[in-house]
Amino acid sequence: MNGRVERLRGLLEEPLLVTNLVNVRYLTGFESSNAALLVEPERVRLFTDFRYLEAAQAVEGVEVVQTPRAVVGWLAEHLSGRIGFEADALPWMLAEELRAGGVELVPRRGLVERLRAVKDEEELAAIRRACAITDRVLGRLVEEVRLVGRRERDVAWEIARLYHEEGADEPAFETIVGSGPTGARPHGRAGDRVIERGDLVVVDTGCRAGGYLSDCTRTVATGAPTGEQREAYAVVRAAQEAGLEAVRAGVAGVDADAAARRVVDASAFAGAFGHGLGHGIGLEVHEAPRLSPESADTLAVGNVVTVEPGVYLAGRFGIRIEDDVAVTAGGAENLSGFTKELLVVG
Amino acid sequence: MNGRVERLRGLLEEPLLVTNLVNVRYLTGFESSNAALLVEPERVRLFTDFRYLEAAQAVEGVEVVQTPRAVVGWLAEHLSGRIGFEADALPWMLAEELRAGGVELVPRRGLVERLRAVKDEEELAAIRRACAITDRVLGRLVEEVRLVGRRERDVAWEIARLYHEEGADEPAFETIVGSGPTGARPHGRAGDRVIERGDLVVVDTGCRAGGYLSDCTRTVATGAPTGEQREAYAVVRAAQEAGLEAVRAGVAGVDADAAARRVVDASAFAGAFGHGLGHGIGLEVHEAPRLSPESADTLAVGNVVTVEPGVYLAGRFGIRIEDDVAVTAGGAENLSGFTKELLVVG
Repeated sequence: MNGRVERLRGLLEEPLLVTNLVNVRYLTGFESSNAALLVEPERVRLFTDFRYLEAAQAVEGVEVVQTPRAVVGWLAEHLSGRIGFEADALPWMLAEELRAGGVELVPRRGLVERLRAVKDEEELAAIRRACAITDRVLGRLVEEVRLVGRRERDVAWEIARLYHEEGADEPAFETIVGSGPTGARPHGRAGDRVIERGDLVVVDTGCRAGGYLSDCTRTVATGAPTGEQREAYAVVRAAQEAGLEAVRAGVAGVDADAAARRVVDASAFAGAFGHGLGHGIGLEVHEAPRLSPESADTLAVGNVVTVEPGVYLAGRFGIRIEDDVAVTAGGAENLSGFTKELLVVG
Repeated sequence: MNGRVERLRGLLEEPLLVTNLVNVRYLTGFESSNAALLVEPERVRLFTDFRYLEAAQAVEGVEVVQTPRAVVGWLAEHLSGRIGFEADALPWMLAEELRAGGVELVPRRGLVERLRAVKDEEELAAIRRACAITDRVLGRLVEEVRLVGRRERDVAWEIARLYHEEGADEPAFETIVGSGPTGARPHGRAGDRVIERGDLVVVDTGCRAGGYLSDCTRTVATGAPTGEQREAYAVVRAAQEAGLEAVRAGVAGVDADAAARRVVDASAFAGAFGHGLGHGIGLEVHEAPRLSPESADTLAVGNVVTVEPGVYLAGRFGIRIEDDVAVTAGGAENLSGFTKELLVVG
């Protein structure tokens, strides 16, 4: 069996029923919309329905069991004894079905996620590749793509096209193109607003390549920025530098966040950085560990996290700068290479 | 307040905490990755974090409450009394947090989903539009796009491009392009296989337009089909006709499924139709009602369902034909217009 399952077994006090499908994929390489994995000391069983049977049977080291569409309902009738389950993933009703079926359920949290947070060399290589593609796409975006006079959603489409041309599997998430006031909504999507000369435009984008993701944000200007815009940009950039310097093994997520936040809060834009500093990336665009005022995580070698402070002025503009950073034995490796100078584009 | 919330209130015995984000969107129009809605007799409260605050405040008829990222954790500290929750959506751990915080939780199932299954005129119009775009994209695919000699994933990309050109917001899901043996995996994705002359190619595709989805499958041949391929295609087509005729208000999902399945099972391909006949579509690509041997649903006026039988011969080829159908007072309206003749393309 593979090393990931072995490492997971080292964390278990009882068999674990894995129902988070990304965790199933991490442990087995098997991708589907309907599956569960039961990791026991001596065997691993992969449950899925007809549609994915042929793909499941290609997975090494697991026993494949075909079930109806309602995988967990079937398990409730066929499993028994003491079994751990992923309490943050399994819906209440399915846990109740298992319990009613006679399974002695033990809620477990974050076991596979803890493994996923520490990337191996192969995973790091995949993330580096995804980040390099995003660097190239951002480079071509500012060189080749006109922004002024076009809808945000059309610029997002150009980015999708560039990803395809540069060899990404797909965008990692719906690219955010937030121009002017749209940019003041940290998760405003690319919409129908037509980008005007003199806007600040937040471009938050990433791709999937070989299963792993990148996630990078740059903010560009479509005309000479005002003094206030320059000042806000400089604050965000300084906050991001402080965040990057704080990302080291052993540093608490709250402390890395605070290092960047204090730069914003010491400026004229105090209070305008309303989200956390960053999050782990890997198979998912948001995973462990978190860097935020609410985080309980501590950084470790092998983590890959975003560092993405911002300043948001409602109804006016937003600025965010985001890199992907790997925590290494020697410090940290910034995987995002695109310039952080405030570019003025057309 | 809007009619959807009013209809929901008519189904409630206690306030309902809506945590399924698609249900939140259905009830309020508000889209985010982190929110909850509490529907009480006299008010509706929308809880979300800073990132979505500005967008939330644009929603009419709700009181917006800003919470930390951990919305449900915050609710556990601030709510009390008897509250229904979406037992199929809420993870076990979050239900436990609410319970530990003193909320008297009542598990509820499928309340908003029941409303969503019955589309109003505006929703039907949106789905019709999405289906019409998919028809045009399929038409351009067989006219303009070369298949032979290209990787499945590159054909999937051409479809994404056509969707953009035809005005869709985005593909509704990752387009399946299953050529030859890939097509024998009902949910095999578009991969690196190069399409050869003489393949059958299953193209399962849909788009999002105005929030609502289409979902349509056609199978084309890249050379003169063999006798067996023609025969299998004719069986699937006859099964699909039988399924279409069965889709009427008052018909049980199991019976609609059986109408199509018996055609396959009476043929030389008995047993090769290994999934359900169809599923509701709307805001999501799989929603109520279901048409399958496991379904407990009965069709009603306003439902929109897929009708998609298939035949899958492992390691060799697959065939699937899928339309989107609205159940009407007079019978049914087929929203998918692209030809179901077996086309031979280059």
